[in-house]
Amino acid sequence: MRIELNQAIEMLNSHDNILILAHRNPDGDALGSGYALCRALRSVGKNAEFKYFDKIPKVFLELEACCENTDFEPSFVVAVDCADSKILGDFPDGRYKEKVDLCIDHHSSNTLYAKYTYLDDNAAATSEIILDIARAIGAEIDTLTAQAIYIGLSTDTGCFRYSNTTSKTMRMAADMMDAGINAGKLNRILFETKSKSYAALEAMALATLTKHFSEKCAIMHITLEMHEKSGTDETEIHALASLPRQIEGVLVGATIKEAEPGRYKVSIRTNPPVNASEICQIFGGGGHKRAAGCEIHGTLSEVKKQLLDAIEPFVRDVDPE
Amino acid sequence: MRIELNQAIEMLNSHDNILILAHRNPDGDALGSGYALCRALRSVGKNAEFKYFDKIPKVFLELEACCENTDFEPSFVVAVDCADSKILGDFPDGRYKEKVDLCIDHHSSNTLYAKYTYLDDNAAATSEIILDIARAIGAEIDTLTAQAIYIGLSTDTGCFRYSNTTSKTMRMAADMMDAGINAGKLNRILFETKSKSYAALEAMALATLTKHFSEKCAIMHITLEMHEKSGTDETEIHALASLPRQIEGVLVGATIKEAEPGRYKVSIRTNPPVNASEICQIFGGGGHKRAAGCEIHGTLSEVKKQLLDAIEPFVRDVDPE
Repeated sequence: MRIELNQAIEMLNSHDNILILAHRNPDGDALGSGYALCRALRSVGKNAEFKYFDKIPKVFLELEACCENTDFEPSFVVAVDCADSKILGDFPDGRYKEKVDLCIDHHSSNTLYAKYTYLDDNAAATSEIILDIARAIGAEIDTLTAQAIYIGLSTDTGCFRYSNTTSKTMRMAADMMDAGINAGKLNRILFETKSKSYAALEAMALATLTKHFSEKCAIMHITLEMHEKSGTDETEIHALASLPRQIEGVLVGATIKEAEPGRYKVSIRTNPPVNASEICQIFGGGGHKRAAGCEIHGTLSEVKKQLLDAIEPFVRDVDPE
Repeated sequence: MRIELNQAIEMLNSHDNILILAHRNPDGDALGSGYALCRALRSVGKNAEFKYFDKIPKVFLELEACCENTDFEPSFVVAVDCADSKILGDFPDGRYKEKVDLCIDHHSSNTLYAKYTYLDDNAAATSEIILDIARAIGAEIDTLTAQAIYIGLSTDTGCFRYSNTTSKTMRMAADMMDAGINAGKLNRILFETKSKSYAALEAMALATLTKHFSEKCAIMHITLEMHEKSGTDETEIHALASLPRQIEGVLVGATIKEAEPGRYKVSIRTNPPVNASEICQIFGGGGHKRAAGCEIHGTLSEVKKQLLDAIEPFVRDVDPE
């Protein structure tokens, strides 16, 4: 059931031995939220641990240093930034999949799988909610906690570019900067650095780009072979998804990534008024208005055709806002 | 002579019929500062006009609507965001070149050419200083003024990415968002849209990229022929300059742009600890620590050689911070 923020705060205040999980393949906001909540709870004397089980992008590795492992039997399980139990970053035996006590999230597509859910889809990032909670429980916001929050805020907003950014996001980021983080250096690593392998894959992917429906849709693909040839890490591919949408006049930018032969992961990025989540829901996926994802099975040309058929009604007779 | 902020405010308060100029080929901060100051002065009942004489990037054209022309004989001339009288965006007859009463600027390379100069090189953008001034004179900060300020803040910080961004910058941007601007839409136009011609020129320029000095320097060039072939507007080229610096490990990224046969404009972008302005000063140019420019004469290969010779001591035996 959905609860109010003060109820979520009260639950965290009244429990101890808190295990924090996030979504699988955690991104900057999932990691930032998880680590920040863990450090906040520890700073008020609780046992808390944040756990994830996937490889994370190397740019986030230094976050790992901010919460040492501890050992306790969890009595309260919190999921952050995870919209669906199907994508929960759980232990291999799936022990908490159906046993999340409290979910804190900003995805409007949240399935309310947890016992209690605090959902604010006006928050640009789950890290925004975590900062409100940390302040409410009287946690210390030291430099490492501030850095985790800032990484969550900045990665989910494209470094304060996207339309989900609010004045609250900006002021929270300002407060985190005042807590002593080196925002310029973080941004350089997160947003202004391309690895050589990424630069190579980018060039290959852009060479596959095609445009459709009066150039209102741009679509490109990445095969396993391209992935291998470039030497890119699985985790480096995420940023590529924003490229097709950047071309003037494009409303829907789609990136089709071969996960294994016959199975493709699709990232959709849109410009207003097109809702990316609605397109992805056709294939059982979801996400946000401007950024969403899904999986489609078939050959590359079948997947591309299915996707274009699904996109067409969203752009035909639709003009950019 | 250099003056304090309160003295600059007092001068603006005590004068009327104020002409505002900026640097030639005005960028987002020059235009944002000029328009915001003009609107601020008008809102407190003064005659004020902002003038520039060059073609501006089309993304800034809607700013023009924010200050209608008026007709008065200027009695006080203010230059904003202009570090040197040599680059003042003056009337064709150069009538104000040596007659600027007050310069308001954030470039540390300012030559103090004006009668009075208020210089704050800790400000991320001149627009930051203009907002402080506008507030101090009791100006109304309506949505159009807020938009001009936001454009100045965002363009000079790479949309709040670069290390010049401070918590003050972030809070000012938050205040401008609260004044009703559509920041998401502005950012999409300013930072997330590539024209087809730009995308074509980008691909051609990246194909010329070479690396030097253990890959700590990356350099690329744009010839008049490439420029023409891509169909790009002169004003679209600015954004390309940030690309060479984005490659992992690069400390100095240089872009050489043919202005006319035998004359090249060079843009330098650096990562810490290298000072871009120091490199450009060798050729009589200047700018900021992370972004600067200069002109070099000769053939393309001569220019490239001169530039590499100048860069070498800045990167040899230097490690990234």
